[in-house]
Amino acid sequence: MHTNNSLIEPIMIIVMDKNATKEMVDHVIQIVKDHDLIPEPSYGTTRIVIGVLGDRSKLREGNIARLPGVKEILLVSKPYKRVSREFQSESTLVKINDDVIFGDNKPVIIAGPCGVESKEQIRTIAKGVKELGADMLRGGAFKPRTSPYSFQGMGADGLKLLKEVGDEFGLPIVSECVSTEDLGVFEKYADMIQIGARNMQNFDLITKVARLGKPVLLKRGMSATVDEFMFAAEYILNEGNKNLVLCERGIRTFEQSTRNILDLNSMALIKQVSHLPIIVDPSHAAGRYDLVTPLARAGLAAGADGIIVEVHNKPDEALSDGKQSLTLESFAEFMKDAPKYHHYHG
Amino acid sequence: MHTNNSLIEPIMIIVMDKNATKEMVDHVIQIVKDHDLIPEPSYGTTRIVIGVLGDRSKLREGNIARLPGVKEILLVSKPYKRVSREFQSESTLVKINDDVIFGDNKPVIIAGPCGVESKEQIRTIAKGVKELGADMLRGGAFKPRTSPYSFQGMGADGLKLLKEVGDEFGLPIVSECVSTEDLGVFEKYADMIQIGARNMQNFDLITKVARLGKPVLLKRGMSATVDEFMFAAEYILNEGNKNLVLCERGIRTFEQSTRNILDLNSMALIKQVSHLPIIVDPSHAAGRYDLVTPLARAGLAAGADGIIVEVHNKPDEALSDGKQSLTLESFAEFMKDAPKYHHYHG
Amino acid sequence: MHTNNSLIEPIMIIVMDKNATKEMVDHVIQIVKDHDLIPEPSYGTTRIVIGVLGDRSKLREGNIARLPGVKEILLVSKPYKRVSREFQSESTLVKINDDVIFGDNKPVIIAGPCGVESKEQIRTIAKGVKELGADMLRGGAFKPRTSPYSFQGMGADGLKLLKEVGDEFGLPIVSECVSTEDLGVFEKYADMIQIGARNMQNFDLITKVARLGKPVLLKRGMSATVDEFMFAAEYILNEGNKNLVLCERGIRTFEQSTRNILDLNSMALIKQVSHLPIIVDPSHAAGRYDLVTPLARAGLAAGADGIIVEVHNKPDEALSDGKQSLTLESFAEFMKDAPKYHHYHG
Amino acid sequence: MHTNNSLIEPIMIIVMDKNATKEMVDHVIQIVKDHDLIPEPSYGTTRIVIGVLGDRSKLREGNIARLPGVKEILLVSKPYKRVSREFQSESTLVKINDDVIFGDNKPVIIAGPCGVESKEQIRTIAKGVKELGADMLRGGAFKPRTSPYSFQGMGADGLKLLKEVGDEFGLPIVSECVSTEDLGVFEKYADMIQIGARNMQNFDLITKVARLGKPVLLKRGMSATVDEFMFAAEYILNEGNKNLVLCERGIRTFEQSTRNILDLNSMALIKQVSHLPIIVDPSHAAGRYDLVTPLARAGLAAGADGIIVEVHNKPDEALSDGKQSLTLESFAEFMKDAPKYHHYHG
Repeated sequence: MHTNNSLIEPIMIIVMDKNATKEMVDHVIQIVKDHDLIPEPSYGTTRIVIGVLGDRSKLREGNIARLPGVKEILLVSKPYKRVSREFQSESTLVKINDDVIFGDNKPVIIAGPCGVESKEQIRTIAKGVKELGADMLRGGAFKPRTSPYSFQGMGADGLKLLKEVGDEFGLPIVSECVSTEDLGVFEKYADMIQIGARNMQNFDLITKVARLGKPVLLKRGMSATVDEFMFAAEYILNEGNKNLVLCERGIRTFEQSTRNILDLNSMALIKQVSHLPIIVDPSHAAGRYDLVTPLARAGLAAGADGIIVEVHNKPDEALSDGKQSLTLESFAEFMKDAPKYHHYHG
Repeated sequence: MHTNNSLIEPIMIIVMDKNATKEMVDHVIQIVKDHDLIPEPSYGTTRIVIGVLGDRSKLREGNIARLPGVKEILLVSKPYKRVSREFQSESTLVKINDDVIFGDNKPVIIAGPCGVESKEQIRTIAKGVKELGADMLRGGAFKPRTSPYSFQGMGADGLKLLKEVGDEFGLPIVSECVSTEDLGVFEKYADMIQIGARNMQNFDLITKVARLGKPVLLKRGMSATVDEFMFAAEYILNEGNKNLVLCERGIRTFEQSTRNILDLNSMALIKQVSHLPIIVDPSHAAGRYDLVTPLARAGLAAGADGIIVEVHNKPDEALSDGKQSLTLESFAEFMKDAPKYHHYHG
Repeated sequence: MHTNNSLIEPIMIIVMDKNATKEMVDHVIQIVKDHDLIPEPSYGTTRIVIGVLGDRSKLREGNIARLPGVKEILLVSKPYKRVSREFQSESTLVKINDDVIFGDNKPVIIAGPCGVESKEQIRTIAKGVKELGADMLRGGAFKPRTSPYSFQGMGADGLKLLKEVGDEFGLPIVSECVSTEDLGVFEKYADMIQIGARNMQNFDLITKVARLGKPVLLKRGMSATVDEFMFAAEYILNEGNKNLVLCERGIRTFEQSTRNILDLNSMALIKQVSHLPIIVDPSHAAGRYDLVTPLARAGLAAGADGIIVEVHNKPDEALSDGKQSLTLESFAEFMKDAPKYHHYHG
Repeated sequence: MHTNNSLIEPIMIIVMDKNATKEMVDHVIQIVKDHDLIPEPSYGTTRIVIGVLGDRSKLREGNIARLPGVKEILLVSKPYKRVSREFQSESTLVKINDDVIFGDNKPVIIAGPCGVESKEQIRTIAKGVKELGADMLRGGAFKPRTSPYSFQGMGADGLKLLKEVGDEFGLPIVSECVSTEDLGVFEKYADMIQIGARNMQNFDLITKVARLGKPVLLKRGMSATVDEFMFAAEYILNEGNKNLVLCERGIRTFEQSTRNILDLNSMALIKQVSHLPIIVDPSHAAGRYDLVTPLARAGLAAGADGIIVEVHNKPDEALSDGKQSLTLESFAEFMKDAPKYHHYHG
């Protein structure tokens, strides 16, 4: 882990109040120097601003924000780095096997049920989605549920079953890990480990998952800003694991007529500011099956590197998320012309 | 204006507290009857709910919500009707002329500058977007600006200029009306009148604009719910004007890394619940030019009936919204394969 | 209207991309000069930032944001001024009459029904709230309603009635104006004119109301930022009307268990950054009567200059907002110890 | 753990589309019966709704929502129970020791630094806040930080130090646990264990912390709904631990002029619907020291059972959260008349 650098960078602008006295300005300048940083004041007719250069790791802006006469602090740029295209300009490719590569010119389609429920169920779905062109198989074995009274998943048995069925049909699997207790079983059976939206800032979990070195699918928290999402990704890269794929899955807003709002603004922005691949999850964003396909197409058109979608053979009997699962028939409808909508930026 | 009907409909469910007494339940039932409505109680082991049927116009749910023993009120369905597919199942087509029809199988592309600035500017842009395949010309003459110190538009002269140039190039025009004072000039010169996001609930303005009978482009308020948007549309249909096109232009959320978030969830939902055409505005949703094209493609893929996009010949000299305007070159890039991304639901 | 000044002020910081070339930096510097502004570059090891000083009215940041090599733009401070304590440090007092002064050490209590419904109703309520210590009478005559099928108010007759009853009991009145058509009747009968939340950015309306010169109560839009609220207030001060009282009435968030969330953070912040008085409306924030009193107390404790609260003699028969109105009994309960909770900052 | 009951309760309303056929209605009724639930249809002129009674644990509403002809599903009431006043009407008191009881008529004041930094720092602060009347000492030893490059806390040594100093001054301590790895040290040294906002839905962590049986302080996630907050609390009660205190700490909204918005609407609502004590954290809600005191007073006035506030002897040298910490002087100012603002509902 490296947390320091000795670069001299412009890191902060201190905006002084119009009524700040000369003593206040001098005091702020002194405190900046005390932090081993370089102050560069600009004098306007009625207001002074002080640019600050130096080593960002020496900055604790909260200390300066409260000095007398300081009106506001503007931070020059976000202190994440490994995830940024300024750090690495070429796009990262995350390779699961020779056929499944995130970030390349072909979108990766991940399909499967919300939860693994039985061998028959998962085999039927896996067979179906494979025939329709899916690249990977998804399925929850450990479920983080809002209510303690909801179905909590099959646990390790579910994960093993998913892997067994994935192998049978040549589909690498991805499943969510919710506890550091389960790291062993994920290391053994998962091809890709999902960090769910609720755990995006569970730094204990994401750090330990990252250390396994396996490909990670990091979902954006439903109320996480782009910056927080980038920092969570930074935690993973910082552990030396570069096999990271991001996932936009809808954000929480005032609008409640659908479950969440798929945030393609941020998705498209992240394609620009980060070199990491990013896919979209239209199922959780929509919360209802009849909006999944339009959102999946929209995600591809906006440049997503893939789609993760819930598909169930009998969604009206599903133990969870039945409302938002595609049937195999509607998944077939989507797959028919999915590539047409995809925009690849190159 | 018609506000009544005499239908017997299920309109409300009253959920009683578990600890409500028999007297409380009887009192609620009596009050429901006093409103000329029909109570239908259901008795559970520990809780009673009372379904209410009748004529919705007789309901004032706020009065019942505060009766002793009432835990909550669930309204059965939204009391808008004319905008709903339950009221009219076939999709409405809004025809501007023989070539420009919203809601049909070809998406309508509206392009032009944020504001009309000069004849030369608007002619250059109109000529450019016409050649690239745009169907209509946009341009603000009356600007609602957050700050009183920002450019407020050219006013009536700007609108006349827009019309003159639109006619020259065979492009019908759309422009925003912000005051009832200007109804006359809009009636004379506009082919389609825009109600802006900030005025979506300015009922005085939208009612009077509706009465002109001209095609209306109603933008969703940046924090309006789908229900509020539908009700604003209902005000217009209720005035007898059916030439209404809706526009999703991005919503306000916690996320501030882009100006707004284009809400394709709601756009796709509205296609289902309403028969009205709906287009998307990727420029205001994005707030920065480099995200406009991905969002425009996403809108088309999600089933939008068109796009309204800001294009400027010299965006780095624009008097407003320069940050989010496409150049003619980037608009050309978008138009090259725009139809490919469009999904038409039929 | 004054929109210019010739001050040299620090107005913007341009953050260049780490990979920006010398040509890009030089070009940005040239463009800044072309705008008659002064560039002040700071050179870090890997990144350059360019401070910009000058006359803010010459700035169109959108033009600069899109220049090649520009990563982001930071604006130094908000260009509103008349509302700011930097412009006027002492608190403004808004005097309705000798007894009712907003911004002074005694909170102003405004009470009354959502809508004026009848003479008997408004007299009963006015008499009641007067006896309990209210300072002003509220009541809607022109109602902006989400649905065209809801009660729209008694109109001009309602306003006259409110004034007549207010005079009878020595209570100045405040009522909402929703259309420029009604300016005459408000000029004649209202002691204070309310701009409602939905019209906070209806600049046509607020400008014309401001010009009447009467005291204005400006409600924050339910999704307006503090900056947008300050700019709307700036429109009013800019017309030469300083009799302006602000009102925080709850904001729209993801949380839907109550109607809105009373934003005391922003209320307390506005007390610091602006010299204008600000009151809170716990009724619309709560949306349910049983939360009104705790929120009213909280508003006073956080330093509000007053409270505007809905009180109805028979809320379970009210034509609107019955759910959130206090009864006269519960208003009495609130008034009993309201002063105890008030914090006056001096 | 008990997840079942055999009560017959009204649990759901199925609203059919106006155009639903008789076959669709019959099919829905049959599916409801297949789930071992009782359908109760109501027939309007144009629409049918079907009430559903039965054992909630048999319901999977997602399966029914997608049946043909179903327009929407209304759930009758939230399936949490142990946290609810319907389950237990009297308020719960959480007793830390004979002097410190949450939920009683005296608000509990918890004060201390964001992070434990050194023995000298924590002793100075503990001594100061004790003398000023604080009841408990807070201090972070394990910090969940957005950025991997921020100060991560002193770890177990910090917790021991906090306990040692708390004992010296007779102040019980509360500190945040972020990993199941640390359960042992918290069991040994903490008087009360905090679950932070980012971990509110880290069900693995909260379940295991609950099992320790110690008092728990559960912070609301910054974007958690009241329902999600109640369910997280339900997880803890469901483990048999009733020593639970809730904490409202500000929610994330569109408004960015302060860090978060203190949600006193939800706080006051939770006092009504739940029997658990709830306190407020004005420091994290405000994000800046000069708004902490107004928000603390507001919380007490709205009926909070206590306050948790960051206090630092030298906030401009603090390693974290310096911006929002009160000095000992400003904490003294707050404590001087804090009790005056408190409303106790009895």
